Amino acid sequence: MDPGRYQYFEELFHPQSIAIVGASEQSALFILPLLEANFPGKLYLVNPNRDNFHGLKCYRSVLDIDDSIDYVISAVPARLSVDLMDQCVKKGVKTVHYFTSGFSETGNPEDVKLEEELVRTARAGRVRIIGPNCMGLYVPESRVTYFYDFPLESGPVALVSQSGAFAVGIVMLGRARDIRFSKVVSFGNAADLDAADFIEYLAEDPKTGLITAYLEGVKDGRKLFGILKKANLRKPVVVLKGGRTVEGARAASSHTGSLSGSSNIWGAVFKQLGIVTVGTVEELTDTMLAFTRVPKPRGRRILIVSFSGGSSVIQSDICVELGLEVPVISEESRRKIHEIVPPAGTSTKNPLDIPSAYFSVDGISKSVNIAASEDDVDVVLFELLDRLPIFFKRRNALDDYNVLVKNLVDSAKYVRDTLGKPFLVALPPSFYEEEGRKLKNLFQTEGFPVFPSVDRAAKAISNTLNYYDFIDKEKSKKF
Amino acid sequence: MDPGRYQYFEELFHPQSIAIVGASEQSALFILPLLEANFPGKLYLVNPNRDNFHGLKCYRSVLDIDDSIDYVISAVPARLSVDLMDQCVKKGVKTVHYFTSGFSETGNPEDVKLEEELVRTARAGRVRIIGPNCMGLYVPESRVTYFYDFPLESGPVALVSQSGAFAVGIVMLGRARDIRFSKVVSFGNAADLDAADFIEYLAEDPKTGLITAYLEGVKDGRKLFGILKKANLRKPVVVLKGGRTVEGARAASSHTGSLSGSSNIWGAVFKQLGIVTVGTVEELTDTMLAFTRVPKPRGRRILIVSFSGGSSVIQSDICVELGLEVPVISEESRRKIHEIVPPAGTSTKNPLDIPSAYFSVDGISKSVNIAASEDDVDVVLFELLDRLPIFFKRRNALDDYNVLVKNLVDSAKYVRDTLGKPFLVALPPSFYEEEGRKLKNLFQTEGFPVFPSVDRAAKAISNTLNYYDFIDKEKSKKF
Repeated sequence: MDPGRYQYFEELFHPQSIAIVGASEQSALFILPLLEANFPGKLYLVNPNRDNFHGLKCYRSVLDIDDSIDYVISAVPARLSVDLMDQCVKKGVKTVHYFTSGFSETGNPEDVKLEEELVRTARAGRVRIIGPNCMGLYVPESRVTYFYDFPLESGPVALVSQSGAFAVGIVMLGRARDIRFSKVVSFGNAADLDAADFIEYLAEDPKTGLITAYLEGVKDGRKLFGILKKANLRKPVVVLKGGRTVEGARAASSHTGSLSGSSNIWGAVFKQLGIVTVGTVEELTDTMLAFTRVPKPRGRRILIVSFSGGSSVIQSDICVELGLEVPVISEESRRKIHEIVPPAGTSTKNPLDIPSAYFSVDGISKSVNIAASEDDVDVVLFELLDRLPIFFKRRNALDDYNVLVKNLVDSAKYVRDTLGKPFLVALPPSFYEEEGRKLKNLFQTEGFPVFPSVDRAAKAISNTLNYYDFIDKEKSKKF
Repeated sequence: MDPGRYQYFEELFHPQSIAIVGASEQSALFILPLLEANFPGKLYLVNPNRDNFHGLKCYRSVLDIDDSIDYVISAVPARLSVDLMDQCVKKGVKTVHYFTSGFSETGNPEDVKLEEELVRTARAGRVRIIGPNCMGLYVPESRVTYFYDFPLESGPVALVSQSGAFAVGIVMLGRARDIRFSKVVSFGNAADLDAADFIEYLAEDPKTGLITAYLEGVKDGRKLFGILKKANLRKPVVVLKGGRTVEGARAASSHTGSLSGSSNIWGAVFKQLGIVTVGTVEELTDTMLAFTRVPKPRGRRILIVSFSGGSSVIQSDICVELGLEVPVISEESRRKIHEIVPPAGTSTKNPLDIPSAYFSVDGISKSVNIAASEDDVDVVLFELLDRLPIFFKRRNALDDYNVLVKNLVDSAKYVRDTLGKPFLVALPPSFYEEEGRKLKNLFQTEGFPVFPSVDRAAKAISNTLNYYDFIDKEKSKKF
């Protein structure tokens, strides 16, 4: 990437001064969080119709501010957007983010023209645009945010999203699941800066370890594909493509004025580039978790541990159907396990299904340690149940339960830290919300990824394995 | 079904007297719930090694009980199982449920033989067996149960499960999602009574509206398929087949000694019979909800309502990919909607995406009523967000929020009760657990099915539509 271009994006994501233009009670929802986030630079408000807004002075125009402005957030009506751009050009603003909507996404010719005029004005004045019709930036390390409860600590995930509310959903889902972000950009109609621009920068951004994108359409496919190819070889890129069907494309068109293009072409290109594609919001967050909380496994051979015989059968099917392998545990290890737990009602070939664990505080953890040590095992997937404590509560054995759970966490750490193999937890939400939350927190606090079902965990880990396989193949081509 | 056979099952599911043999601290977990469930018939305990158990007298043998016994639950070790059967034959017991494991599921030849001997003894004495290696019956209307928190109110769903823990999981998931059961049978190794026997009865049981089954293997495929075919024409049958892969079949074999058979054959037969098949526990519960809480829609044309533009695009894709249709709302209706909500930032073609709803207490409900009234709409799927109240909380407008939510529920009722079209809610869990729970309860209390994601709702409704289409086709064949 051209150093000047890189420098532009570095400054974009770390603005020293921001002016918010046209703040009102409606846009307050997305502006107040920024006002309250202790942005360490200078923050100015502009609104000729008000003296102040939520206690802050309002300037009449950006030109009245006696300071340089890096970044302008526009909440003015669409008809005032070009005037604002004129002022920003004069002021030497680097980037304007148009929260403002009512441009090409309406499909009305005059609105399309207005967007074109806005871009022309900006380009002539060397100002870049984010949007219009979008939420803009969330950069925790710069304390730039647009939603009240966005965490202000950073993480390795970048998200480039054509939809702002979609990005809110992902960040808040991530908050509940210990996924944190380096940079999030909602870029709406992409009249100027587009997904490819942001991804090109994020590929070089040392704070970003994983690039994820929600895309509806692109104007310049060749540019995007070239950048995706390079980026994906440096760090994983995960794409959720909206508008895969005619009906989805129709929705995308009225959402961000996007032309979604043929889903066949997108699919073929993504496959060729080794890009991981996902189909739902849930799969996207699961895959974020798998890429950032699960170290690269040596291979696809999974040890499944379950508290239910039926589940263990279904889990085997699901894992194999997703391209994972379920190796048989060796006779020697099984003999060792049977010295610890009685054989009746127990399966030890893999999956491990050890109901007697309900009555032993260390039967299952010791069995897991033995089975996970097998050379043939690359990954461990442990299905926990939120009803587990009930068995102990009802026989007044909560002390035993606490020891059992401590042993399980120790076993998970042994697998991850001593054996060096990923340990994933699946914990399906059922009736015991409080118990489930406690169990989840216990493992999440120790850095283990927790998934709401076995199939979602298996799909996520399978997505990362497909990426690692692609990269290994690409690397081997070079030699 | 032969009237005598039907009568046998009626009595099985409504026993007048039960004896539990060999209760211990280990099996207490599954026995105490029955002791505490206020079983209205006679309940006896048998254990020659104890005078009493949890305050109830223990008889030395079933033969010592001075009363007839309909149903015996065995928790004795496997080596005592045949002796117990001998006594039950003498006593004239109708059915013995063997909680006891250590039979064919271990794969040891002597255990396989023991199971054969047990069956021979039972058949010679005209006693039927449930199991061995299973949890037996949960029949809320008879107050027969095997887990503490199983609800004691009945519902229309029957579950026939080769795995007991699996059945516990489903019932507790169901409890959280307002799914209630008529009869649940965990039948383990199916040494005598098998899935086909239970399904044959459930097809005629007036208390059962939906038959669901978790199957690992069958000994008599021809019998099962014949019964499935007849049952499915009377009421929907949903099957989760475990052991679809070689690895899953291996797990099934050590779980219940089942031979899973070729998944190709199962798949082909299920398809031919119009049986709905599901792949995960989650899909099974979703499909239960769709069959029992969603009246049969007129067709596949779905109206999608969303609070996020990006989600609305993805939702369209998901619905279409699952075989649903997303019709365009008419110009006339869209004009009416635009008289209520401003066009900027709004999509009204279908999906409905109306962000201004955040600022209007009735914009979205009125818009839904207009769009749902279209002839082209058969079903409404509304995605709610647990962050919705946050927008109102932060601007001290919780009164507005309460009115908004009331309007949404009223709109849902209008669609369901006045327009006669199913109304489904999707509410993905995110960060705001408390807010999400309240919203979920609000709709669930009014009888609306709530799904944890749009794709799960769409898959479930699509499963039911496939069933209804099959039945309609079968019916039309007859004329």
